[in-house]
Amino acid sequence: MSTTMRDVARAAGVSVATVSHVVNDKPGARIGEDARRRVHEAIEALGYRPNALAKTLSEGNSRFIGLVADAIATTPFAGQIIHGAQDEAWRHGFVLLVANTEGNAAAENDAIAMMLEHQVRGILYSTWYHREIDVPPPLQHTDTVLVNCFAADDAFPAVVPDEVQGGRTATEELLSAGHRRIAFVNTTSPSPARDGRLAGYRAALEDAGVASEDSLIFEAAPEQEGGYGIAGAVVASGATAVFCHNDRVAMGLYDGLRDRGLRIPDDVAVMGFDNQDVIAAHLRPPLSTVALPHYELGAAGVRTLLGLEAPASGARQLVACPPVLRESM
Amino acid sequence: MSTTMRDVARAAGVSVATVSHVVNDKPGARIGEDARRRVHEAIEALGYRPNALAKTLSEGNSRFIGLVADAIATTPFAGQIIHGAQDEAWRHGFVLLVANTEGNAAAENDAIAMMLEHQVRGILYSTWYHREIDVPPPLQHTDTVLVNCFAADDAFPAVVPDEVQGGRTATEELLSAGHRRIAFVNTTSPSPARDGRLAGYRAALEDAGVASEDSLIFEAAPEQEGGYGIAGAVVASGATAVFCHNDRVAMGLYDGLRDRGLRIPDDVAVMGFDNQDVIAAHLRPPLSTVALPHYELGAAGVRTLLGLEAPASGARQLVACPPVLRESM
Repeated sequence: MSTTMRDVARAAGVSVATVSHVVNDKPGARIGEDARRRVHEAIEALGYRPNALAKTLSEGNSRFIGLVADAIATTPFAGQIIHGAQDEAWRHGFVLLVANTEGNAAAENDAIAMMLEHQVRGILYSTWYHREIDVPPPLQHTDTVLVNCFAADDAFPAVVPDEVQGGRTATEELLSAGHRRIAFVNTTSPSPARDGRLAGYRAALEDAGVASEDSLIFEAAPEQEGGYGIAGAVVASGATAVFCHNDRVAMGLYDGLRDRGLRIPDDVAVMGFDNQDVIAAHLRPPLSTVALPHYELGAAGVRTLLGLEAPASGARQLVACPPVLRESM
Repeated sequence: MSTTMRDVARAAGVSVATVSHVVNDKPGARIGEDARRRVHEAIEALGYRPNALAKTLSEGNSRFIGLVADAIATTPFAGQIIHGAQDEAWRHGFVLLVANTEGNAAAENDAIAMMLEHQVRGILYSTWYHREIDVPPPLQHTDTVLVNCFAADDAFPAVVPDEVQGGRTATEELLSAGHRRIAFVNTTSPSPARDGRLAGYRAALEDAGVASEDSLIFEAAPEQEGGYGIAGAVVASGATAVFCHNDRVAMGLYDGLRDRGLRIPDDVAVMGFDNQDVIAAHLRPPLSTVALPHYELGAAGVRTLLGLEAPASGARQLVACPPVLRESM
């Protein structure tokens, strides 16, 4: 039975990433002399030989890009990140390997170890909703791009949706349609989306010379039930248009407005966010919204990983959220 | 630069699967003598050495199971197939490699070749909705289980949802609630779901001694717009309950019933199918439905692949679709 990189890592008391690193002599890696020595000792003691394929790949012929995702493949939401990454990888002669870990740390480490052992060209690490993450330590040993997430210290290149522009665009569309009393139903969950969309809403109002009123800003659970429950308060505010944190909230708001005999868009205009499949295009009337650019996030992640798109150093690369206008405004 | 299995395949004019097969001397494989000779000649001419990892794995230590999917990871529907397969693979010490190919034949062949080259224990081939498929030829050279799909000649073990039982269960739930005039809004798209759910609907009525009336069976596009459009005809039929082909149709029907001043479930009971995330639990009232067992399909696929669950030879393994009762009936 051959010795694997994992056996060496265990014997040396280091991570598989460190072994990969030492074996492939990756330039720029910061491996302590002690760890390096232990790895070499373990390699000798166990008779480990790096496999031929791995050597080939480390010489620059890797045809794989790894995508480690929390729940992208299994939630009905951000799957187009995978589609965009696949198409872009394919365009440049790479095959995308996807590991969906459900946020399980053991599964995550195992998937990363497998990818490093197979000498992927690099790894995209991605989350199903936009958020700050703790980057798994093994990712420090390979080229990594964060997609739809970012590190607190921005130590890794990251590609994320432009929430501020998205909130601004949604509000500007309602302003262009002539609305001045525009309510915003934000989410109760702390997130970059919550802060960014609110900032964009305020900025658009300010640019249009419309005073932002706290009495027009609401918070609700980010799903249908939240939108339905807030409908009474929104109607009482005298708003003629409502920008909802997401399409699910807009769907619930539809029912709440209908219960009160109000017509969309004649009595109240509604704008969503996400352009979520299954819902947005199929509500009555079809919902105007702002799209989360999932496909483009995946594609831009691959381009950044391959060095085809240079991220401004230390900064997050923002991808625009385009408006998708239908009949609710 | 090392020679890869792909180089050998190209030189010998055979598939990567055939090379893998010859190199690993897989028992039971049907490789012509001529092809086998050409592979050996190419191996010698090119100086190909099977890599150490692959040899280890072919000796029975493979830690990977491949999942080749059409669009499961990117449609907001069947992602739980991946979740179920992952959990089950993980439970038995395997890591799942997912390749989502969007039905692109080139991507599919490349993903399969990669998996064979890395000596996966076997491959699950899966589709995002239940249908008959043409099995990609390279899959004949490894252990393959079809998930949510099947071959016309049933030449491969397949794990699929029990559509007949699902249709029967939906109808039985409505019968138990006292309904006798039960409409069925079926899909216009030919599929195992269309035939199976209709057969189950008819069987349940027959068992209950209720005559099946063709005037209670409707067809509509399998989405919200179809359900909304058929609402008038359903109401005119005098049905007190409606079984919808899927939850999206039920969502559209809700709007159509509401437009006519009818309350759910007091005036008309509604039953869906799929238990689709985003919709089913969040309609008003929350929708009673029958769940497609996506998680269980993935898990059962892995168990079958690992020989832990023996499929009846030549037959499709049916997974039950359980009822999920909420407030619409």
